[in-house]
Amino acid sequence: MADCIFCKIISGKIPCNKVYEDANTLAFLDAAPTSLGHTLVVSKNHYETFDEMKEIDVKSLAITAHKIAKAFKKISEGYNLIQNNKKVAGQVVPHVHFHIVPRKENDGIVWNRQYPKYSKEEMKEIADKISGKIK
Amino acid sequence: MADCIFCKIISGKIPCNKVYEDANTLAFLDAAPTSLGHTLVVSKNHYETFDEMKEIDVKSLAITAHKIAKAFKKISEGYNLIQNNKKVAGQVVPHVHFHIVPRKENDGIVWNRQYPKYSKEEMKEIADKISGKIK
Repeated sequence: MADCIFCKIISGKIPCNKVYEDANTLAFLDAAPTSLGHTLVVSKNHYETFDEMKEIDVKSLAITAHKIAKAFKKISEGYNLIQNNKKVAGQVVPHVHFHIVPRKENDGIVWNRQYPKYSKEEMKEIADKISGKIK
Repeated sequence: MADCIFCKIISGKIPCNKVYEDANTLAFLDAAPTSLGHTLVVSKNHYETFDEMKEIDVKSLAITAHKIAKAFKKISEGYNLIQNNKKVAGQVVPHVHFHIVPRKENDGIVWNRQYPKYSKEEMKEIADKISGKIK
């Protein structure tokens, strides 16, 4: 897509610190990293969100993320895969991407999970609702 | 694995709110959800972390996460996929799993990203280091 920054990185119009590339995917360092080595993995085909992707591209993206993860196993104490869909979920660039973030003890990075309480009935109802939307 | 809580859920020894199941994967509600509908997707084969997985199971896990994501597209304003590897990264249950978390405006869930500064040389060096570990 003409005005997509990740499409420009993929086409080489904007430079990046490349980590890995194959026919369908590209991995490069996040220019504003959370920790040293913070890598983004993108599909070369433009999709805004994960749900929009074709299955063949989902598999390619997952396999490339897996390659990076195996490398991170060797250079970090642990790591997160994070993928944000839509602005309400923290997505900044509207081109589907996985963050892979190397972690270490006491690095101060916190996923501020909350623990609201839901009843058994609410849980059963939402499970059935999601289940009913799966094709 | 005998003492793994997710293996017990997979085998039916511990009940869950099931969202989806196929031959290789299971999706069920997180018992301590961050938001209503917070789903976990697991591989039926036991692996501790993502990097340890066989590629065939990576693909199955990604395709099931994609099915859940397509359902979430219909019932939420946005969502995160999060996958934590090792305790330093926030992994609680040592059986590889994706969190899929439905999001909405002002829900108070925050990924506390930090923005440390690294030099161009440090960035180039770590990109080359990761790249060199990829097979």
